[in-house]
Amino acid sequence: MPLLVTGSIGIDTVETPFGKRDDIIGGSAIYFAYAASFFAPVRLVGVVGEDAPHNLFHVFDGRDVDTSGLEVRKGSKTFRWHGSYVKDLNEAVTVEVDLNVLAERSAKLPDAFLDSKYVFLANTHPVLQQEMVGRLKAPKLVVADTMNLWIQTQREELGKLLKHIHGLVLNDGEARLLTEKKNLIEAARDVLKMGPKFVVIKKGEHGCLMVSDRDTFVLPAYPADRVIDPTGAGDSFAGGMMGYLATQGTFSSATVKRALAFGTVVASYTIADFSLGGLQKTDRDQIDDRWHAFKQAMSF
Amino acid sequence: MPLLVTGSIGIDTVETPFGKRDDIIGGSAIYFAYAASFFAPVRLVGVVGEDAPHNLFHVFDGRDVDTSGLEVRKGSKTFRWHGSYVKDLNEAVTVEVDLNVLAERSAKLPDAFLDSKYVFLANTHPVLQQEMVGRLKAPKLVVADTMNLWIQTQREELGKLLKHIHGLVLNDGEARLLTEKKNLIEAARDVLKMGPKFVVIKKGEHGCLMVSDRDTFVLPAYPADRVIDPTGAGDSFAGGMMGYLATQGTFSSATVKRALAFGTVVASYTIADFSLGGLQKTDRDQIDDRWHAFKQAMSF
Repeated sequence: MPLLVTGSIGIDTVETPFGKRDDIIGGSAIYFAYAASFFAPVRLVGVVGEDAPHNLFHVFDGRDVDTSGLEVRKGSKTFRWHGSYVKDLNEAVTVEVDLNVLAERSAKLPDAFLDSKYVFLANTHPVLQQEMVGRLKAPKLVVADTMNLWIQTQREELGKLLKHIHGLVLNDGEARLLTEKKNLIEAARDVLKMGPKFVVIKKGEHGCLMVSDRDTFVLPAYPADRVIDPTGAGDSFAGGMMGYLATQGTFSSATVKRALAFGTVVASYTIADFSLGGLQKTDRDQIDDRWHAFKQAMSF
Repeated sequence: MPLLVTGSIGIDTVETPFGKRDDIIGGSAIYFAYAASFFAPVRLVGVVGEDAPHNLFHVFDGRDVDTSGLEVRKGSKTFRWHGSYVKDLNEAVTVEVDLNVLAERSAKLPDAFLDSKYVFLANTHPVLQQEMVGRLKAPKLVVADTMNLWIQTQREELGKLLKHIHGLVLNDGEARLLTEKKNLIEAARDVLKMGPKFVVIKKGEHGCLMVSDRDTFVLPAYPADRVIDPTGAGDSFAGGMMGYLATQGTFSSATVKRALAFGTVVASYTIADFSLGGLQKTDRDQIDDRWHAFKQAMSF
């Protein structure tokens, strides 16, 4: 089943202990779409300015990603982010951010995408996320991401969104901010009371936690000895997880666990290079092999 | 097979967000011995002063712990530690520490214990740890813990110890300090080059990592919604792990993984109460049940 994603598309400048890259392709929707496309057909919705680099439009060449929802807006500039991991590979410091086109009206959801059953709303203003959910005809699984900014400034709107989605994906700091609970299990349970059927808390190098009424799963990150650039790891994780779920059609405990593990493995490729480099160098066979190795390393 | 442990025995004062407890029983060897005794007979070696509280000598009543190596030294005072987790449940701040008897000569290893096959050298001066190893007749598995202080001040002696033990257990900060590698997989591989056949890196609430020439295992912590006092979690983890190994007699990959999971589960009881309270309220059946639940939550 096709998987719809809406989110940011951007031009990044990234510094890590392994070097600096200027004007590379980034954005939550880009990482998510690339990661998900190892598993399922993807429908991408997003907006860039007319300054968007040529290679951005070829990033999905040969992949099953429908980019007809990618708007190039005349007179606007593409979202730009400059981040540094020089001090700490686990936490980005934003050096500079220019919202540009992201501060304008959002990308239009094409009519042809309204029948999407699997939907990921990458991080953006919760009012825009609500609008997207409202337009969908009969979604089967809607999962959203969010961030500190919206938790702090748009708590009420975020609360409304949470009543209309099935799952929320967020990182540990955001979960603590949203619930004011330090213990992540407690925080996750509080998120469930806000509406979602399940919540996935991403802990970066420490893996992830999934809590629903039925299950509590914990997974470590894939033990990587080569972390070059963690940008996009969380979005790639979500892409791998949702991409796998979109191929399954069920949400049994076993299916969800396998999906979390696929997300974990896909993210391990993302962090091995700058931008999409790590994902571009792998394929579904390698992902499956690493998934089996991960499963093996975990089972006892 | 009996499992020998030498390490600190102390009187703790502990503050956490859940309260303060004065003069409670603590020390690495105490937590380790209690945790290990769910699995195997334990031989305890340690030294206290004549001020040691009465209940310290009854803590192992009814358990298979041979305390004939517990010396009560005349004219000396027991080791005391006052720690606070009020700011951060994951990191103890030492408010006060009085080494007292621990600054004197170490406890004597009883002759009857020299045939021990399974040995855990809890954190102490690496020269004392070397002496212990030197006296053992034919140990099958010797594992040591260490700490920042010895890494910083006794690196050469610690290096000698590492050539004579099978395994090293340490936390993530200590592993980074010892190897000057930030990535924990790289750090673990560097530790192996120093001598041990395997290294276990404890990451507190984020679980653990085991690396040997043969295997790399990662395990999250047990998802606990009730962390009252994390003191002794690392020693309980080591006790559960070594206790289980002492009953198995082999070190196959599967056995080691199961042992790490038992360590993880036993530690989850320790953190649920102050001092030994959490361990005292559980039994082997509960531990086995939780181990199976953990295995279930992890497997996919």
